[in-house]
Amino acid sequence: MSMPTDVRRRQLLAGSAALVAAPLAGCATGAPTATAAPAPVVPPAAPAAPKLPAYAAWKDADSLIIHSSSTLETKRSSMGASLVTPAERLYVRNNLPAMPESVLADRDAWQVAFEGVAKPGTLTLAQLKTIDFISVATVLQCSGNGRGFFPHKPSGTPWKVGAAGCVIWAGVPLKSVIERLGGAQGGMLYITGTGGEKLPEGVDPLSVVVERSVPIAALQDAMLAWEMNGAPLSVAHGGPLRLVVPGYQGVNNIKYVKRIALTPSESKAKIMSHGYRMTPMGQKAEPSQASVLLMNVKSWINTPSGDGKLAAGPAQILGVAFSGGSPIKRVEVSTDGGKTWRDAKLVGPDLGPFAWRQFAIQANLPAGTHTLVSRATDAAGQVQPQQREENVSGYGNNSWADHAVTVVAA
Amino acid sequence: MSMPTDVRRRQLLAGSAALVAAPLAGCATGAPTATAAPAPVVPPAAPAAPKLPAYAAWKDADSLIIHSSSTLETKRSSMGASLVTPAERLYVRNNLPAMPESVLADRDAWQVAFEGVAKPGTLTLAQLKTIDFISVATVLQCSGNGRGFFPHKPSGTPWKVGAAGCVIWAGVPLKSVIERLGGAQGGMLYITGTGGEKLPEGVDPLSVVVERSVPIAALQDAMLAWEMNGAPLSVAHGGPLRLVVPGYQGVNNIKYVKRIALTPSESKAKIMSHGYRMTPMGQKAEPSQASVLLMNVKSWINTPSGDGKLAAGPAQILGVAFSGGSPIKRVEVSTDGGKTWRDAKLVGPDLGPFAWRQFAIQANLPAGTHTLVSRATDAAGQVQPQQREENVSGYGNNSWADHAVTVVAA
Repeated sequence: MSMPTDVRRRQLLAGSAALVAAPLAGCATGAPTATAAPAPVVPPAAPAAPKLPAYAAWKDADSLIIHSSSTLETKRSSMGASLVTPAERLYVRNNLPAMPESVLADRDAWQVAFEGVAKPGTLTLAQLKTIDFISVATVLQCSGNGRGFFPHKPSGTPWKVGAAGCVIWAGVPLKSVIERLGGAQGGMLYITGTGGEKLPEGVDPLSVVVERSVPIAALQDAMLAWEMNGAPLSVAHGGPLRLVVPGYQGVNNIKYVKRIALTPSESKAKIMSHGYRMTPMGQKAEPSQASVLLMNVKSWINTPSGDGKLAAGPAQILGVAFSGGSPIKRVEVSTDGGKTWRDAKLVGPDLGPFAWRQFAIQANLPAGTHTLVSRATDAAGQVQPQQREENVSGYGNNSWADHAVTVVAA
Repeated sequence: MSMPTDVRRRQLLAGSAALVAAPLAGCATGAPTATAAPAPVVPPAAPAAPKLPAYAAWKDADSLIIHSSSTLETKRSSMGASLVTPAERLYVRNNLPAMPESVLADRDAWQVAFEGVAKPGTLTLAQLKTIDFISVATVLQCSGNGRGFFPHKPSGTPWKVGAAGCVIWAGVPLKSVIERLGGAQGGMLYITGTGGEKLPEGVDPLSVVVERSVPIAALQDAMLAWEMNGAPLSVAHGGPLRLVVPGYQGVNNIKYVKRIALTPSESKAKIMSHGYRMTPMGQKAEPSQASVLLMNVKSWINTPSGDGKLAAGPAQILGVAFSGGSPIKRVEVSTDGGKTWRDAKLVGPDLGPFAWRQFAIQANLPAGTHTLVSRATDAAGQVQPQQREENVSGYGNNSWADHAVTVVAA
């Protein structure tokens, strides 16, 4: 919810509408980079807090950590406890500059090329809308979420918990579209999605294009979404049309999707071949290393967040838990840094296997310092580990120890 | 999602921050009225569209019909298809002017008095937060939603479909609070909630106070909510704390709740005794008539909405269905005004018995005019009727015929 302070902040921002298109903060070693646009002349002013970029000026700045013009993180204290993350508070991570707002002027005219099917061709969004309909709740999470806890300080944004949210999409099941186009051609093993961003000139397109491949099994759940949380999709989140692959790490959910190809092999784009790989420490990224695909089992505590005062005595501990497609079965909470554990309650609506669950537990927190941690288990039996998997770029951190909250009750 | 056009609109609005506090549009015969604040002098300007009131200036004006400063309706074309209604698009109906933003300066200090329990007393929001936690999705609907279809033009806002939304609340179960206070005193039959609004001077408080009683059976599901859709509750929607009674018509969900009393009889406030009664045509409102309590079974189509162009040929018909606490079992759709029907699919996450379900069905709409209607059935066997129940104030309209959408395919 945007409070009047935010409205004022928006008005303030309005005065600097031509915001600096800052250089991309590469998500990690191996991630593509682009030439920064020339910075406009900014009139001298008192040092100010970082500002929201123009394409996301409607967001709730007070809820966000502004790392750069392409990386906005939700504060732990602003994650909320009612399951759905409002668009105003949802993180942003762009691999290329966001498309211009003009791309939304005629949403229904947006075109997507389909390849690797019996009847290849191009469909408009208006046509896609007539084929079928689905609505799905998913956790959207940058694979680098939790990178800020890696001690070797990987390059890329040092996200802690806030490069994640849970949202509800509306769109068309991709499999219904593929069926309409006669089904997959033989031998296709991947769904390859390509973003529509304008590529910087003078560089090999494969070095910068946002194009990712996921196993064709993802066709069971993948969708093309034109709406998020009850409103048409913004450019900040990939509007007018985004490929959503439930259960998969954020980068696989291609914004401004302009091409869907069923392919026999993975994309040769650098973001696929060398970016987003689980590169062992001391090595260089290469295609033989695991790509960031399905999300792993994870949870963390949002309340208390460690911000603000905490009164000693009875407290309500709240957090979220999710896994890459297997429902959450159990969440345990410790108030002594993991020495002893108690089962938390899963509360609130179950939005399906790709959403997160809210958990709650009451605890007594006497005056002093407490280390609060949570540990999730999914229905497939995967248990959130104590330790992160070390890797060069800092992906896939689901360590319960790293996600601890230290609070001081007084 | 707020588009840049909305951002610009907000900026525009910022220029007229001291908005007119328009007289309250009485919801219905028998509803309380208040003295209008004196209108500030507005500089002469070209005739403009109605503006959002200051307390709701953060809303998405393009999605709303602005009936008055206290009555904002979501356009049918802006209802969305992903289940949750974003706060920016959610309707507003205030019986008294919204409380000032200052009431949110220290949310945790908000106090609620509890009466009719073994240990009466006052609890702060900070204390309430430690007692227990729940998150619930509910349809929030003004009991006058659909009044605009009554041919006798009842007094009050002529809402069509948009005085309703589906949102997710976070808060504490009221029954947990009552248990903490030693349970109900004997003989208590109602939960009576009182709003904290400042009452106009010089009038009998009972004639204006927002105070409603619901049967004590509602204790099973009632909650005190401080968060909606993942963000702290705004004053527009009753922040810092609102009584939410899942399954009940909107007026029973008391904003700025400052007192909860378990009582042996209904409140004597006019809004309870004479307001919101199902008064037969030609009669005057009186306490013996049914009050608007549980919502009845209802559905309507949002896509196509009748706005904009519709291409002849295959179309996707989308809408929402809900009932006052009994899950929706079936939705039928007709494209010939109710002569023939087909079963629609219920799609998307099931947010629980108090939320609405999204339905979808494909249809072929050849060139010409079509009358689209939907008819819901709940698990208790209640079927949405063809005809409204006539009543003086235009409450409880769930007629499927009234909610038809006429579209012209070309």
